[in-house]
Amino acid sequence: MDKIQNGWFSEISEFWPGNSFSLEVEKVLHHEKSEYQDFLVFKSKSFGNVLVLDGVIQATERDEFAYQEMITHIPLFSHPSPKRVLVVGGGDGGVLREVVKHPLVESVTLCEIDKGVIEASRNFLPNMRVGFDHPKVTLFIGDGMEFMRQRKGEFDVIITDSSDPIGPAQGLFERAYYELLKAALAPGGIVCSQCESMWLHLDTIKGLTTFCKELYPNVEYAYTSIPSYPGGSIGFILCSLGGSTKAPIREITPEVQSQMQYYNGEVHKASFVLPQFAAKKLNL
Amino acid sequence: MDKIQNGWFSEISEFWPGNSFSLEVEKVLHHEKSEYQDFLVFKSKSFGNVLVLDGVIQATERDEFAYQEMITHIPLFSHPSPKRVLVVGGGDGGVLREVVKHPLVESVTLCEIDKGVIEASRNFLPNMRVGFDHPKVTLFIGDGMEFMRQRKGEFDVIITDSSDPIGPAQGLFERAYYELLKAALAPGGIVCSQCESMWLHLDTIKGLTTFCKELYPNVEYAYTSIPSYPGGSIGFILCSLGGSTKAPIREITPEVQSQMQYYNGEVHKASFVLPQFAAKKLNL
Repeated sequence: MDKIQNGWFSEISEFWPGNSFSLEVEKVLHHEKSEYQDFLVFKSKSFGNVLVLDGVIQATERDEFAYQEMITHIPLFSHPSPKRVLVVGGGDGGVLREVVKHPLVESVTLCEIDKGVIEASRNFLPNMRVGFDHPKVTLFIGDGMEFMRQRKGEFDVIITDSSDPIGPAQGLFERAYYELLKAALAPGGIVCSQCESMWLHLDTIKGLTTFCKELYPNVEYAYTSIPSYPGGSIGFILCSLGGSTKAPIREITPEVQSQMQYYNGEVHKASFVLPQFAAKKLNL
Repeated sequence: MDKIQNGWFSEISEFWPGNSFSLEVEKVLHHEKSEYQDFLVFKSKSFGNVLVLDGVIQATERDEFAYQEMITHIPLFSHPSPKRVLVVGGGDGGVLREVVKHPLVESVTLCEIDKGVIEASRNFLPNMRVGFDHPKVTLFIGDGMEFMRQRKGEFDVIITDSSDPIGPAQGLFERAYYELLKAALAPGGIVCSQCESMWLHLDTIKGLTTFCKELYPNVEYAYTSIPSYPGGSIGFILCSLGGSTKAPIREITPEVQSQMQYYNGEVHKASFVLPQFAAKKLNL
């Protein structure tokens, strides 16, 4: 717990050297080392409860909706009929909570390697754990790569809600994983994966989009503003076996829209408009 | 210089309690107290040289282009013929650098209260100080409010590039200032002012947009991603005596576009698309 000093938690990582985001701690709620990672939950003074894995903030109650809504609703509103959804990672339950807002979804499977994350969410992140309680949800505790090898042509949308490529999630940023994803998709299927910061990791993103363009007919990149992630934003790679994902293709009902804090149809479209430096480099 | 500890500068402020952005310091280049504020320039390990006023980061060499380009080119490309431009604040020169990229601009006046900022930029921020050397630029050292009282119907675009409303810039967030701005605008004129973070200061922004809507026929709000500002983004209030500022109304030549790292016509439009929570609250 040496990352907490003088009452502040600081997120220091070699993956974003020389810059750091800090939150003032009101109370540490939980800290343990699981088989896979170190995890910490604390109550912050201004961002609600915070989940930290291996020293990196995964979610804060104040702004998690931006990430969860965008990583979920961009692919789901880009698919004509998303019935079967897979979430790889996402053990905090936030993405599940968003997926089940779609009445068209018939089943959603969550594959999380570390059951400790699920337990932490159940105990300390009440607004996120609600996803687990939905009857359409099936949990699978195990390795995402292993799971994918057994599933072929099955999913309309696959969401990779992973941590960064330094630790247990490293394999989820490699070509072999995107080959498995492709095989696991049903015709017209869409993948949406957490894909880092255009400000801090543009080379990493370029690497992913380059090999994904060899695998998928349609590769696009979107991002969302979110204060508690490095650099204040995070991006998503969208790989589609069908059409473009840059605009919603289904109407959002007022009832579903009323449950959103970040996403709407215009935000969906705007999230693909990248700053000139990123657009030029990625050249999608 | 107590904000530097263990080799890191941390930006801690009551204006964004409980969260903080930090940069690792390679070397302190300059530190003094001027008549108006404490200012510090340091070389960071990963964000280039950094200008700090009263403990708050004003610009880093790595990402300043996002702010300078957006606060400048949104109003300038929204005006049919921006000939006379005023910049209030902006003593680092970055906005001037952007304004003079527009061939239509005939004169640009900079009104900065603290000449120490200009000196710091001249000495330590070579990519920003270039703005001062342009023949179309006139400098005025003094209070922005005083300056405005003497200028009526004169400017096509006025840009307020200020620090936050706690310190010398406080008056620049008040109704009286926006009344002076309106009087100083030529017919069809446009104001664009730094207007904080929608994540951290939505009530402040709502207050400004509310009184501005009583003064101007057209009030809009845009934002840009920028890692080194609180919450990783910063917004702009656009007040127009003419039409909407939500889209560029003049063509960007390839020569001008090639000088941009953040702005382009699509980015201009997307920057006005606010997350649902902010759109709902501001209701513009």
